[in-house]
Amino acid sequence: MEKNRVEAFSDGVIAIIITIMVLDLKPKPDEVELTNLKSLLPVFLSYVLSFIYVGIYWNNHHHMFHSTKHVTGGILWANLHLLFWLSLFPFTTAWVGANHRAPTPTAVYGFVLLMAAIAYFILQHAIIAQQGRDSLLAAAIGKDWKGKLSPVLYLAAIPLAFVSPRISDGLFILVAFMWLAPDRRIERVLAKRERE
Amino acid sequence: MEKNRVEAFSDGVIAIIITIMVLDLKPKPDEVELTNLKSLLPVFLSYVLSFIYVGIYWNNHHHMFHSTKHVTGGILWANLHLLFWLSLFPFTTAWVGANHRAPTPTAVYGFVLLMAAIAYFILQHAIIAQQGRDSLLAAAIGKDWKGKLSPVLYLAAIPLAFVSPRISDGLFILVAFMWLAPDRRIERVLAKRERE
Amino acid sequence: MEKNRVEAFSDGVIAIIITIMVLDLKPKPDEVELTNLKSLLPVFLSYVLSFIYVGIYWNNHHHMFHSTKHVTGGILWANLHLLFWLSLFPFTTAWVGANHRAPTPTAVYGFVLLMAAIAYFILQHAIIAQQGRDSLLAAAIGKDWKGKLSPVLYLAAIPLAFVSPRISDGLFILVAFMWLAPDRRIERVLAKRERE
Amino acid sequence: MEKNRVEAFSDGVIAIIITIMVLDLKPKPDEVELTNLKSLLPVFLSYVLSFIYVGIYWNNHHHMFHSTKHVTGGILWANLHLLFWLSLFPFTTAWVGANHRAPTPTAVYGFVLLMAAIAYFILQHAIIAQQGRDSLLAAAIGKDWKGKLSPVLYLAAIPLAFVSPRISDGLFILVAFMWLAPDRRIERVLAKRERE
Repeated sequence: MEKNRVEAFSDGVIAIIITIMVLDLKPKPDEVELTNLKSLLPVFLSYVLSFIYVGIYWNNHHHMFHSTKHVTGGILWANLHLLFWLSLFPFTTAWVGANHRAPTPTAVYGFVLLMAAIAYFILQHAIIAQQGRDSLLAAAIGKDWKGKLSPVLYLAAIPLAFVSPRISDGLFILVAFMWLAPDRRIERVLAKRERE
Repeated sequence: MEKNRVEAFSDGVIAIIITIMVLDLKPKPDEVELTNLKSLLPVFLSYVLSFIYVGIYWNNHHHMFHSTKHVTGGILWANLHLLFWLSLFPFTTAWVGANHRAPTPTAVYGFVLLMAAIAYFILQHAIIAQQGRDSLLAAAIGKDWKGKLSPVLYLAAIPLAFVSPRISDGLFILVAFMWLAPDRRIERVLAKRERE
Repeated sequence: MEKNRVEAFSDGVIAIIITIMVLDLKPKPDEVELTNLKSLLPVFLSYVLSFIYVGIYWNNHHHMFHSTKHVTGGILWANLHLLFWLSLFPFTTAWVGANHRAPTPTAVYGFVLLMAAIAYFILQHAIIAQQGRDSLLAAAIGKDWKGKLSPVLYLAAIPLAFVSPRISDGLFILVAFMWLAPDRRIERVLAKRERE
Repeated sequence: MEKNRVEAFSDGVIAIIITIMVLDLKPKPDEVELTNLKSLLPVFLSYVLSFIYVGIYWNNHHHMFHSTKHVTGGILWANLHLLFWLSLFPFTTAWVGANHRAPTPTAVYGFVLLMAAIAYFILQHAIIAQQGRDSLLAAAIGKDWKGKLSPVLYLAAIPLAFVSPRISDGLFILVAFMWLAPDRRIERVLAKRERE
C-alpha cells in the first residue's frame, strides 16, 4: 500500500486542527480598544503554544513518513490514533485559554499532550516493526531521548498543575523548545545512506 | 479520467468531517473542574465513536480506490453521494452527544449510518461495474459479509432505539469493532495478483 | 507553471465549502423529538441543494482542469474569483435555509449562483484563450448551451423570488438536474483525441 | 527533503483560512430584507479584502516554491511562521468587519498584515540562502521593490488608523492592487532559464 494518501489525509487533518484553534480568538462585538486585546492575551498565548506543538507534530510526522515506503493496516490505525489525540488540541487549547489560572484545564492540556506523545511513540514503533532490522527510522531516531523525556515531563506537569498552573505551563514551553531545536537525525541518516 | 483528484477531494472532505466534530466539545466558560468533564463525557464518547466510524470509512475508501484505475462520471457521483451522508455525521454526533438518553437522536444517528453504508455499497458496485469481469475489487471483497451484515444491524438499531438507546449504542459499537478487526482482503488479493 | 497545486488548492477550498455548510444543521439542545427534525427540514433541503451545486462545480472543475496543461497568472486569478463566489454558498445556504419563505434570501441565493456561473464562464474562457486555436476545452464544451442557459435561469429566478420563492427554488432545482445529467463532452473529446 | 508535503500542507492551511473567514458573514435569523444586507456590508468588504490578500499570498507562495527544489528544517519553520500570521487573518477580518470605524481593530489588521509580510520576507530569504549563489528565486525577485514597499505602507497604516481608519483602509487596498497587477518575474526568469 502506498503512503501518499496517508500523508495527504494526515496533512488535511493537521491543517484543519492548526487552523480551527484560531476560531476561539474572538473579541466581543463591542470591544474595540487595545486594552480589550489584553484580555485576549491568555487565549492568544495558548493558541501560539498549541500552534507550535501542532507544527512540531506535523514536522516530525513529515520526517517519519519520509523514511517510510509501505504502509500497513496497523500503521494506518496507529496514525489515526495519533490524529485523534491531536484533534483534541483545539478543545484543550480553548479551555486552558479561557481559564489559564485554573489547574484542571492545564492538567487536561498536559494529559492530551501526553496521550499524543504516546500515540506518536506507538506509530513510530509500528513503522519500525514494518521496516524490519534495517529500519531507517530506528537508525534515525537512535536512542530517542527527546521522545522518551517528553512524556515524562508531561506526566510531571499534570499533578504540578494543581500546585501551580504556571509550573506546568513552563514545562510545556520547555518541551516545545526542546523539539524546536533543529532535529536533523533523520535528514542526516538519509543523507548518509544515499552517499553509501 | 484519473483517480488522483477524486482521492484528494475525498481526503479533504473526510479530513474536515473528522475534525469539525470536535467543535462540539466545548466546556462552558466557567466550568473549570474535573467534574465538569464528566458532563462532557457523552459528547466525548459520541465523538470517539464517530471518529472511529469516519476512520473506518476513510480506511476502506483508501483500499477501494487503491484497486481502481479509471473513474467514470457515475463513480464521481456515487462518491459524492457517500460524502454527503458522511457529512451528516457531525450533525448526528452532536445531537446524540447532547441527548444520549433520547431515542430519536440515537435512531437518526443509526439512520445516517445506514444511508452511508448503502452509499458505500452503491459506490463499490459502480467501481466493480466499471472494472468488468476481472474486477480486482469484486475478487477482494468476496462475499462481503461485513458489508451486508452492517446495514442489517443499523436497520435493527433504529427501532430498538425506542426500546432503549443503549441497545442501539451497543450495536453501533459492535459494527465498529467488526470493521476495526484488520481486513486484509484487498491487500491479500493485490499481493496475490502481483505474485502471479 | 504546473496545474497540480491549483487543483489541490481548489480541492481544499471546495472540500471545506461543501462541509462547513452542514454546521448550520443544528437542533437546539432540548429538541429531541422526530417532529423537531421537521423544523430543520428547510435547512436540510437547502443544504442538499447547495451540496449538489458544489458537487457539480467540483465535477466540472475537475473536467476543465483535466484538459489543461499550463496555468497562467490570469487563470490563477480567474480560479480564485470562482472560489470566492463559491465561498459565499455557506452564507446564502444558511440564510435561505433559515428563511425559506422570504423573497430576499432566495433572490440573494440566486444572485450568488449567477455570479459563480459567470466566474466559471470567465475561467473557462481564460483557459481556452491560453490553449489557443486547438483548444481541447473549446472543442469539448462545443456550443455550451448548459453554460449559457444556466445564468439566464438564475437571472430569471432573482426577480421571480419576489413573486414567490417557490418559483425560484424550482428553477434552482431545474438547473441542478440539468447539470446532474451526465455530461460526457470532455471525456468524449479526450477519448477521441487519444484514438487519433 | 521533498517540497511536495510542505506545499500540500500550506495549501490545506491557506484553503481553510480563506474559507472560514466567511463564517462571520451571518445575518441574524430574523433579518430577511435587502436593507439587512446593508448592515452586513462592512463585514462583506473586509472579507473581500482579506480573501484577496490570502489569494495573493497563496499565489506568491505557489511561485516561490515552484522555484524551490529542496526544503530544509529552517524553511519548514519559516513557512509555519508565515502560516501562523496568515492564520490570524480570520480574527482581524472579523474584528475590523464588526467595527470598521474603530481605530484599534484597523491598526491590528495592519499589524498582522505587517507581520505576515515580514514572515514572507524571512521565508524568501531562507529559500535564497538554501539555493546559494545561483538562486533562481533571488534572480526572479530582483530588487523586490513590492516586497520592500508593502511593509512600509502597513507600518504607516498602523498609526494612521488613529487619525482615520479610512486612510489605513485605503493603504491596505492600495497594497492589494499593487500585488494584483500581474507579477511575471518568476515566470519570466524560469522561462528564460529553460530556453538557455
